[in-house]
Amino acid sequence: MIELVALDADDTLWHNEPLYTSTREQFGALLSRYEPSGVPDDRLYDVEMRNLEHFGYGVKGFVLSMIETAIELTDGRIESTDLKAIIDWGRHMLSSPVELLDGVREAVEDLAARYPVILLTKGDLLHQETKLARSGLGQLFKGIEIVSEKNAQVYRSVMKRYAVPGERFVMVGNSLRSDILPVLEAGGHAVYVPYEMSWVHERVSDEALADAQFHRIAHIRELPALLEVLR
Amino acid sequence: MIELVALDADDTLWHNEPLYTSTREQFGALLSRYEPSGVPDDRLYDVEMRNLEHFGYGVKGFVLSMIETAIELTDGRIESTDLKAIIDWGRHMLSSPVELLDGVREAVEDLAARYPVILLTKGDLLHQETKLARSGLGQLFKGIEIVSEKNAQVYRSVMKRYAVPGERFVMVGNSLRSDILPVLEAGGHAVYVPYEMSWVHERVSDEALADAQFHRIAHIRELPALLEVLR
Repeated sequence: MIELVALDADDTLWHNEPLYTSTREQFGALLSRYEPSGVPDDRLYDVEMRNLEHFGYGVKGFVLSMIETAIELTDGRIESTDLKAIIDWGRHMLSSPVELLDGVREAVEDLAARYPVILLTKGDLLHQETKLARSGLGQLFKGIEIVSEKNAQVYRSVMKRYAVPGERFVMVGNSLRSDILPVLEAGGHAVYVPYEMSWVHERVSDEALADAQFHRIAHIRELPALLEVLR
Repeated sequence: MIELVALDADDTLWHNEPLYTSTREQFGALLSRYEPSGVPDDRLYDVEMRNLEHFGYGVKGFVLSMIETAIELTDGRIESTDLKAIIDWGRHMLSSPVELLDGVREAVEDLAARYPVILLTKGDLLHQETKLARSGLGQLFKGIEIVSEKNAQVYRSVMKRYAVPGERFVMVGNSLRSDILPVLEAGGHAVYVPYEMSWVHERVSDEALADAQFHRIAHIRELPALLEVLR
């Protein structure tokens, strides 16, 4: 029997990646004014990865990486008013309304009536708290865990904090890299709910998944029925 | 009897404000190359306060506010290489070694042998975790609570999480605004350990302190003896 259900937030409960995708498109359009012959698509991602250990996940680090990429790719020719625009995009992302995925409210209400449910998300502390407040779902969670990275050690410490053994813990989310593989490594159950798009950083190879035993559902509304039979 | 001791981190356990102060000085020197007649000292602070609701506390928001201030104060004349330098300062701040205040290790070891001790700090999640890891103090804490703001509601939720009533909880820190007044409002004890310098945002007026009942010690090494007599 499951004793604790942990739900991912971004792209599991509410839309997130489309906001990054549209900002990346704006960024590409801005840079193309300086480099009409085009700029490499993966350059921003490379800078993001280079900065990850310092800046971590979230909008602020994304904005800083866009600024650095823009300065590097234009050899410093980028106008400071355009850099100011990039910061404005960041503020826009941080203050955007939270749009729940279809059926999420009903599914989480249903789950919360049957199990203790926690929110378990990585990223920026203030921004994730703000999004949770805007979502209107806050009262349904027994606990909120915002972490800087989702690895097996973090999942073990969450299980310990809630005094739940791995076989009674289930993580539900849209990222194979963050929500599925490390949970299995920590001895828990994992339910994968794919989202329509994913950040390249969250993808994993087929080999990494070869021996992974997890469940996959098309929509979070299938979760309550799945948990009933999970052992 | 005290049942839970919560310690602030920045400028209570390790030096922090000097890093911000020296970066602010570098920033002033950089801007003075564009504005030889001088720039208003409080302009950066104004931008930081304007951005606080979006960016929260921490180095990344500080860097974004420096970039915005530089663009605004120079009417866009700032060179992008100088903006790149500002981002480099941020990376330097984030990767700086953690320097414990004198006597902190002994004091925390002494406390941890007598009470459950937690770290309770606000700011950037990843950066605070990184600093704790660098401090070498991690094993001494029963829990780590990194929060986006320190207000009475947050202190109440920490007390609830650890199942400790206010009269058995004590917060120890260097900020009257964050570590003392909201704890008293939440019904806990508070011990003020002033640091040699403070960010203007953390200061409070004498009126706000008029009826505040808290303890003040000159050094954290006086804390174990104070807690013995605290009721």
